Amino acid sequence: MVAIAPSNRLRRTPFSEGVEAAGVSAYTVYNRMLLPAAFESLAADCAHLKDHVQVWDVSCERQIAVQGQDAGKLLSLLTPRDLSKMADDQCYYVPMVDTNGGMLNDPVAVKHSDDHYWISIADSDLLLWVKGVAAGMGLNVSVTEPDVSPLAIQGPKSDDLLARVFGDAVRDIRFFRYKRLPFQGRDLVIARSGYSKQGGFEIYVEGGDIGMDLWQALFAAGADLNVRAGGPNLIERVESGLLSYGNDMTAAHTPFDCGLGKFVNSDADYIGRVALEQARAEGAKWRLCAVEIDGDPVPACDRHWAITRDGARLGQVTSATWSPDQNTNVAIGMVQADRFATGADVEVKTQDGTRKARLRAEFWN
Amino acid sequence: MVAIAPSNRLRRTPFSEGVEAAGVSAYTVYNRMLLPAAFESLAADCAHLKDHVQVWDVSCERQIAVQGQDAGKLLSLLTPRDLSKMADDQCYYVPMVDTNGGMLNDPVAVKHSDDHYWISIADSDLLLWVKGVAAGMGLNVSVTEPDVSPLAIQGPKSDDLLARVFGDAVRDIRFFRYKRLPFQGRDLVIARSGYSKQGGFEIYVEGGDIGMDLWQALFAAGADLNVRAGGPNLIERVESGLLSYGNDMTAAHTPFDCGLGKFVNSDADYIGRVALEQARAEGAKWRLCAVEIDGDPVPACDRHWAITRDGARLGQVTSATWSPDQNTNVAIGMVQADRFATGADVEVKTQDGTRKARLRAEFWN
Repeated sequence: MVAIAPSNRLRRTPFSEGVEAAGVSAYTVYNRMLLPAAFESLAADCAHLKDHVQVWDVSCERQIAVQGQDAGKLLSLLTPRDLSKMADDQCYYVPMVDTNGGMLNDPVAVKHSDDHYWISIADSDLLLWVKGVAAGMGLNVSVTEPDVSPLAIQGPKSDDLLARVFGDAVRDIRFFRYKRLPFQGRDLVIARSGYSKQGGFEIYVEGGDIGMDLWQALFAAGADLNVRAGGPNLIERVESGLLSYGNDMTAAHTPFDCGLGKFVNSDADYIGRVALEQARAEGAKWRLCAVEIDGDPVPACDRHWAITRDGARLGQVTSATWSPDQNTNVAIGMVQADRFATGADVEVKTQDGTRKARLRAEFWN
Repeated sequence: MVAIAPSNRLRRTPFSEGVEAAGVSAYTVYNRMLLPAAFESLAADCAHLKDHVQVWDVSCERQIAVQGQDAGKLLSLLTPRDLSKMADDQCYYVPMVDTNGGMLNDPVAVKHSDDHYWISIADSDLLLWVKGVAAGMGLNVSVTEPDVSPLAIQGPKSDDLLARVFGDAVRDIRFFRYKRLPFQGRDLVIARSGYSKQGGFEIYVEGGDIGMDLWQALFAAGADLNVRAGGPNLIERVESGLLSYGNDMTAAHTPFDCGLGKFVNSDADYIGRVALEQARAEGAKWRLCAVEIDGDPVPACDRHWAITRDGARLGQVTSATWSPDQNTNVAIGMVQADRFATGADVEVKTQDGTRKARLRAEFWN
């Protein structure tokens, strides 16, 4: 493994001290910020996540705060998803596209009020897009990156752990809804959400100064729950079919190509509308699917792996890893929509050779 | 050192195969792409750079191609620098700011013609800003990231090496000008520029397919020049006072704060003009300066180090490293403009303790 060169530019987080004390062994960089990718090992971290509870430093899910008179107008320009029924305590998954309908990010919007939203972003500087559109249109909004660092609590014991620190009110938080609950006198947004299918919450920690206090309170409260530090786990996310912007889709893909067509339902005159209406009429070009790859554990999927059938290229694998629980290699791939077939036998070309594989309609978790 | 977790999202380059064969020991991530940070060691790489010639994979200097009828208009909106005298074979350092006058990036613009520019970017997704402004204003331009990967040739033997591959015409390329010279039948933009003060060129490799052929041609031609793989070197860049966006300045700083006031000279109605005129009238808040830090080699500067005098905070060190040639720690810092004084004794607080240090007006190279 190659080392990561330390740099101010790859930003530390309010929780980095805790992450390092917990023995982080690999980092990735996400929104120019350090994101823990592994502690003991991908496999051991995954097994623990499925049985217990983990605290994840996902500060790299940076927030874009949109505030002011035109906030709602700007939001409705930025996404093809209908926001008209969004409640003030609600989180919405909101794909955002450019004028060509290409995906720029797939963030979660957090609504505070009609004139105040956060956009919790995946890995691209969406702040610049939002600021650019607002500047170009002369809208009356402020667009900033506030001092908010999400901390995720994930795993089957998440409710128990969080209830010990924030009270039983957390148990009543509904999926993709949030409550404001106090820690050290500060009301924090706590949403039932997160980047795994093992259940849990994301705490939007406002003010990095209380970050390590919260980290330590969670670990103190959860000792008998076997709480550990973790992070988005490659094995669990591929088994679950959780998409990663930049890995599994880019600006070359429309929401339809990514299986996100149901989020294209706005009546507003959003950016990219003409392109997406045309894309809907033409049908998706790509189909995102699960791919099961035979043989020993695959090498690291650090580049596109061509998917071929009878020598003709169908698409590419974009994320892949060995799954101990499935006893096979699990992968996410994108293939030409009209050539997808459930169970189709294909070949996948890795940097270490070609493997037999099969396309699947369903992911594993 | 913590490992970097491999991922498709941290993009490989057309030259990654060569970089790995040359023994890269540390990567950084820049514009979501792998950038080699060290091979033998920072110190050994630096010494070699100053005596010989290196080939740097700087593909992460992604290009934004701006093409179409409104290209010139868009460029003149994006930067406070006067572009009216820019020639068709010229490169301009063009700070770009938001409506508040805050630095969004400090790229180099490469002019092809009045309706075709490249913007060669530092570490932020400026593509999204440019697309956002164009979309918000409804301009008639296309804004894309083309398949162009810069390869830098740096060091005192750069002219000799490049002349062997592209002919003696390279010797006549003036500073921040370019020529189009052929390789394998493809005309490549070759500019006299680069992120060191050791001299050299940047080759804008159009089409990743010829990347490794060019890499190998350079190494074959330069064996007796002691050519090696390298990358932007932390020691050399700090000695030379070369700024790094994201390390040394951010959107919190105006061009005046960064010593870049001379590039605020446009007559156009560019974005941020009102804010920058006010900032000019008020005077810079910050002064970027060299800082000499006493004692043994400092730890990695992966966070801001407070600069204090008599217990009061003046600013922060943003980049720092041990310099074997200077036999001291060299650093870049930003201090409150009205408290800067050449030679002032200060203290610098690193993660491993506080050091005595001095502010300097001049860098070392």
